[in-house]
Amino acid sequence: MTPRQERALAVARGLGADGVLAADPPTVTWLTGLVVDVESGPSPFALAPLALLTPEGPPVVVASEDEADAVAAAGCELVAYPGYTTGSLDPVGSAARSLAAAAGGRTLATELGALPAALATGLSLVEAGARIARARAVKDADELELLRGALRLCDVGQREARARAAPGIAEIELWGLVRAAVERAAGGRTPLLADLASGERTGGTGGPPGERVVAEGDLVLCDLVPRRGGYWGDSCATFAVGAPAATAREKHRRASDALARGLEAIRPGLLAGELDELVRAGLDYPHHTGHGLGTSWHEEPRIVPGGDTVLEAGMVVALEPAVYADDEGVRVEQVVLVREDGCELLSGHALDL
Amino acid sequence: MTPRQERALAVARGLGADGVLAADPPTVTWLTGLVVDVESGPSPFALAPLALLTPEGPPVVVASEDEADAVAAAGCELVAYPGYTTGSLDPVGSAARSLAAAAGGRTLATELGALPAALATGLSLVEAGARIARARAVKDADELELLRGALRLCDVGQREARARAAPGIAEIELWGLVRAAVERAAGGRTPLLADLASGERTGGTGGPPGERVVAEGDLVLCDLVPRRGGYWGDSCATFAVGAPAATAREKHRRASDALARGLEAIRPGLLAGELDELVRAGLDYPHHTGHGLGTSWHEEPRIVPGGDTVLEAGMVVALEPAVYADDEGVRVEQVVLVREDGCELLSGHALDL
Repeated sequence: MTPRQERALAVARGLGADGVLAADPPTVTWLTGLVVDVESGPSPFALAPLALLTPEGPPVVVASEDEADAVAAAGCELVAYPGYTTGSLDPVGSAARSLAAAAGGRTLATELGALPAALATGLSLVEAGARIARARAVKDADELELLRGALRLCDVGQREARARAAPGIAEIELWGLVRAAVERAAGGRTPLLADLASGERTGGTGGPPGERVVAEGDLVLCDLVPRRGGYWGDSCATFAVGAPAATAREKHRRASDALARGLEAIRPGLLAGELDELVRAGLDYPHHTGHGLGTSWHEEPRIVPGGDTVLEAGMVVALEPAVYADDEGVRVEQVVLVREDGCELLSGHALDL
Repeated sequence: MTPRQERALAVARGLGADGVLAADPPTVTWLTGLVVDVESGPSPFALAPLALLTPEGPPVVVASEDEADAVAAAGCELVAYPGYTTGSLDPVGSAARSLAAAAGGRTLATELGALPAALATGLSLVEAGARIARARAVKDADELELLRGALRLCDVGQREARARAAPGIAEIELWGLVRAAVERAAGGRTPLLADLASGERTGGTGGPPGERVVAEGDLVLCDLVPRRGGYWGDSCATFAVGAPAATAREKHRRASDALARGLEAIRPGLLAGELDELVRAGLDYPHHTGHGLGTSWHEEPRIVPGGDTVLEAGMVVALEPAVYADDEGVRVEQVVLVREDGCELLSGHALDL
């Protein structure tokens, strides 16, 4: 049993439950390693896989038979229902029957915000979503390896963005090159959340790539969040195409100083809210200072004003202070691992303007 | 009220309900026009939007306040709960409270396979998933315009695949070019489901692009399914890089003949199972002959063996017969609109080998 599975079972015990029923796809990946497809919406053939963890054995995945190979590769047992078919479809009914059989009358700690209502009927369930979310914050060694892999994809994408940004290229064209570089490096399709904004759009905190054409002297704000092996990387850099304006240099200096203050301060025992205050000092970006990442792209520890999460060794934190004003914005972001004596930088992308 | 909203309300009345609560994202888009993000998994800040339709007024969307502009643009009312925040998070609790307020004690026909259990508690609900799915099959005029837009993206992607496939290019590189062309044409990020397989991989019905390098004489099987404005296009072509083998020409002829038989036969009153039998005659592909498409990429009418859906004018059907044997596969796919006197071809991509 992995440390995170032990923590999940401890959550269940604390609620008087016999096991955990993971329903949110990031939690399923966290408990089992099974990577759940997220790029094309709900499937007509199957519900999202669920995972059942009890003290008795390996996790049991309740999913369509189409997941059999992936579930076996993850070392889990599978309680399967029919998947892709040219016959009639009843994924909801068959998933509900499979889950009931797998649950076997146990009381289960689960995520009722993600579990479909049709699957909850007749089961003995206790809500545990917030507790499970907190249990995901400290990473195991195998999770750190996966996060490092995702962050290497960030580095590839950030390098490509800098190499290809030039006057005359539309944001959406630049995006195509960046995404292609990330997927080439990954060797396959890769979920990729991103901001890619240029010029005056950087002043509005970013946004997805659009048809704006990059001009000489523009800033490009590039925030890349790729998923690899079920874990999300994160990264942001802001750079100038040509010579940056003095105002941009000043913003870049202030954002970079704020990031440096944060990295210097991170250590176990620090409160998330204290870290937020320290990084945010003198700046007024309208978003979080940072967040954890793992099988989801924004999780505990959330580095926000008043945040009461206490940093612990093994947490992974992305810090992303920024300065936005007068149609010009600079955001810089790095990801670190909290260690007993401070933190270790996991990001490898360039941050210069 | 649109014809599809009338049909949805008829489903509710038939079940003794006062209205419809759409929970599956494709159904929410179908009833409201609101496009739901699908590319990066669950958001930590909000649940997927829900839509409530009653005879009394425009649809009511229950979603986070981050959706306010999109909901207004769709002409719907919004019952909002907090969205992105640097404060504490409780999207499940706040969504449940907002939904309870919007439902106001009505009995609602809903999709219990998609509605989160935490949101169902205390409401009076009747399961209507299968009936709603059937009601989505006939398209309204505005839906057809959106489908035509998505199919134009298919045409762009298919053209790019043919233009760029060459000996020495890896599937994943070709994919990057195809995806970039689709997103450039769309002017922004575009969900895109796809098979892109070459050489012997075409014999296994396709699959996502990988690291295989295309060689002279290879077949490339390219099935592109982009979403635009909430509606999915679909398209498949199989073409040779260089001169095709005689076996490939024979497979292409048989698959193309099967597709032509299907297009010739389609008319209102034809049973889905009859259409399947007619197209499949003499072939043995291990998948459906076709399917409807709209706010989901596979929906009624499913063209499968024994399928008992009766084709009606206004349905949209993708047909995709294929021949797979000896590590070589050819699939051809076109999308048509069922009309009173037959069908109208909506696809514009080339199908030659």
